[in-house]
Amino acid sequence: MHPARQQETSHEETSAERDTSRLEAFSDGVFAIAITLLVLEVKVPHFDNASTSSALTGALLRQWPSYLALITSFFTVLIMWVHHHIVFRLVRCADVKLLFVNGLLLFFISVVPFPTAVVAEYLGTSAAPAACMLYAGFFLCISICFQLLRMAAFRPAVMIPSASDATLRRLRGSYWIGPPVYILATVIAPFYPFAAICICSVMWIFWAAMTREC
Amino acid sequence: MHPARQQETSHEETSAERDTSRLEAFSDGVFAIAITLLVLEVKVPHFDNASTSSALTGALLRQWPSYLALITSFFTVLIMWVHHHIVFRLVRCADVKLLFVNGLLLFFISVVPFPTAVVAEYLGTSAAPAACMLYAGFFLCISICFQLLRMAAFRPAVMIPSASDATLRRLRGSYWIGPPVYILATVIAPFYPFAAICICSVMWIFWAAMTREC
Amino acid sequence: MHPARQQETSHEETSAERDTSRLEAFSDGVFAIAITLLVLEVKVPHFDNASTSSALTGALLRQWPSYLALITSFFTVLIMWVHHHIVFRLVRCADVKLLFVNGLLLFFISVVPFPTAVVAEYLGTSAAPAACMLYAGFFLCISICFQLLRMAAFRPAVMIPSASDATLRRLRGSYWIGPPVYILATVIAPFYPFAAICICSVMWIFWAAMTREC
Amino acid sequence: MHPARQQETSHEETSAERDTSRLEAFSDGVFAIAITLLVLEVKVPHFDNASTSSALTGALLRQWPSYLALITSFFTVLIMWVHHHIVFRLVRCADVKLLFVNGLLLFFISVVPFPTAVVAEYLGTSAAPAACMLYAGFFLCISICFQLLRMAAFRPAVMIPSASDATLRRLRGSYWIGPPVYILATVIAPFYPFAAICICSVMWIFWAAMTREC
Repeated sequence: MHPARQQETSHEETSAERDTSRLEAFSDGVFAIAITLLVLEVKVPHFDNASTSSALTGALLRQWPSYLALITSFFTVLIMWVHHHIVFRLVRCADVKLLFVNGLLLFFISVVPFPTAVVAEYLGTSAAPAACMLYAGFFLCISICFQLLRMAAFRPAVMIPSASDATLRRLRGSYWIGPPVYILATVIAPFYPFAAICICSVMWIFWAAMTREC
Repeated sequence: MHPARQQETSHEETSAERDTSRLEAFSDGVFAIAITLLVLEVKVPHFDNASTSSALTGALLRQWPSYLALITSFFTVLIMWVHHHIVFRLVRCADVKLLFVNGLLLFFISVVPFPTAVVAEYLGTSAAPAACMLYAGFFLCISICFQLLRMAAFRPAVMIPSASDATLRRLRGSYWIGPPVYILATVIAPFYPFAAICICSVMWIFWAAMTREC
Repeated sequence: MHPARQQETSHEETSAERDTSRLEAFSDGVFAIAITLLVLEVKVPHFDNASTSSALTGALLRQWPSYLALITSFFTVLIMWVHHHIVFRLVRCADVKLLFVNGLLLFFISVVPFPTAVVAEYLGTSAAPAACMLYAGFFLCISICFQLLRMAAFRPAVMIPSASDATLRRLRGSYWIGPPVYILATVIAPFYPFAAICICSVMWIFWAAMTREC
Repeated sequence: MHPARQQETSHEETSAERDTSRLEAFSDGVFAIAITLLVLEVKVPHFDNASTSSALTGALLRQWPSYLALITSFFTVLIMWVHHHIVFRLVRCADVKLLFVNGLLLFFISVVPFPTAVVAEYLGTSAAPAACMLYAGFFLCISICFQLLRMAAFRPAVMIPSASDATLRRLRGSYWIGPPVYILATVIAPFYPFAAICICSVMWIFWAAMTREC
């Protein structure tokens, strides 16, 4: 192959890559900030009785819904970032459709601290059903956005030419599992709020197991 | 063409690109953080009566001005990020003027959570006119900054040589629509506060439609 | 060597590097945000008596536990970022194991503002033992995660081929110091809370001294 | 020149550049987050009387110290980011000394929201002297750190070989202006608090004028 021509090809590839690199960097930023803002919902406990070590320990332990919500949200968003990364590695450039769907996904990701805070506040109260339904409903929206992102990304117009059919088939198959499970969690939340949170927690372990890199 | 010479040209291009790449990365950071901080303005509702699911649902629904303000601000900032990206792809290097105008734009972008919080708090009260005027006024400032950015960016001194006249003409034309519409929104806000917010909401759909990538 | 072939090798290297570059960028984001959110725990002092300069100065000085906790957490997280960087420079690509361990480390890093705020609030009270034990316990968890990260990173499957044995031996040796020291800090915290914080403060100076770059 | 050899040189340069690129990206993150967190200190006004538009407007206007502090801090941090960028463009790789000084600078940058909030709260009260002294004192610390950064960066061990003497002399000269001016601001703050803030505000305009890129 002629070096000059190869240079050109390489230059075009770089230029195409640059198109999504800033989009990926911006998305990474939103994911990283949303995941780190979650900690702001865990409040330093304040209590009326004397500030002794046992009072503080008790107050810290009573905040378990905050920790459960934080851990579930953190690892779900983290796994979603990993899958966002997997999808975008197959994307050559971003058109309006992909930009719009990605924006919708980022919106729901950035808002995750809100339902997390609601669950942290109300999981231990009799308002738990509504709080958990909001929480599961949010993750349902995110999984639908992911489905849309996959559909927008795996079109010949934006995909890299070297994407193997096997990879695409595997990714297509696995993403269909998300929405039905989150629908189930949302539907059972009014009756078994804690079970709904558990389903959301288990999902990220499932997504993590599906990740294959290197 | 001689490979060594081509290498040099390519090296210079890379070096020039690096000049704006850190500026773009920093701007991306500010956009991403401002957009994600918006969620902090949506407060977990607290209510006096017993924490039942219906009380929580009611309290969550009564916060609709927060959600409206969040969605409008999120997608407007997102679309502005897309257009910031489109402008900077045509920039070869950043001089003082461009740095200064970009700084002014970033200032208003980073402050967006403040008018958003004011609208979220006062849209349902009789102080809505002042709140909406502040909100529309902010987006007017941002659209003026964008106009200044476009003027600072589309000068031969900082532009890439390969920028086509057609692209420039299209971008120049479209940006002039922003300021007058936001002036209208600001002016009618004292009389029809809700209409002003609607105009701001509609604008980002218009900006989105104008985006052409890939 | 033939230029075309060299080009290919270089292209493969770039492609492999890109695999970890987005992971590193995301990790950097989480580190940078966690470190900057620490300042939100330092509250503007409010006091009952007249707002005179001496009252403000006194109120600012009485917040010394906030400053101590902020400084200790900031520099510990900063040094951990430096070491995260040192480890990942030896990594060629990220597999599931490394992704998972890195996620666990990022979780604890992102949560650092919480124990920092607890120490800032309760170091001056009789609840200091519990607060300091929580704080030291957190850094123990982080140092264990770092140990796991090192083990996940220094496997032939993910490491760059050119990593020298001397570098690996040095890094392996130095990281074993972390967990025992943090165990000590956690164990003595109920009896000497202030000493536990001091040990945590001293550790980052030790980690800093171990850094060798350039 | 032989293409293969040139390729190697170029590869080494890229590798050296990568050393500081992650440090720059991390620093950029801290700068971008610190600058965007400033808006959190501007609170939505709450007032006792009826929520009318004129009451809200009045309450918003009474918050002028918040806006003044926000604008001064935002543009000072922004200009410092520009100068951080200018210094690091001359750096080839980061050794322990440079890492440590950069860490110290990032610490003070990340803490800027705190003195900003103190000034915003107390500029209109009789505690203004103490608040402004804290504020000016912070910027004094930052300008000293910048001086140290310049000294750590402009050593042959870490500098790029192509840095021109003229550039170095210009940068060396201009940075000496910072500390004395901020010392002056800190010293006069107890007597003329408002003048101290004005000096801090004027400084970033001076730094901006000194920026020469492209």
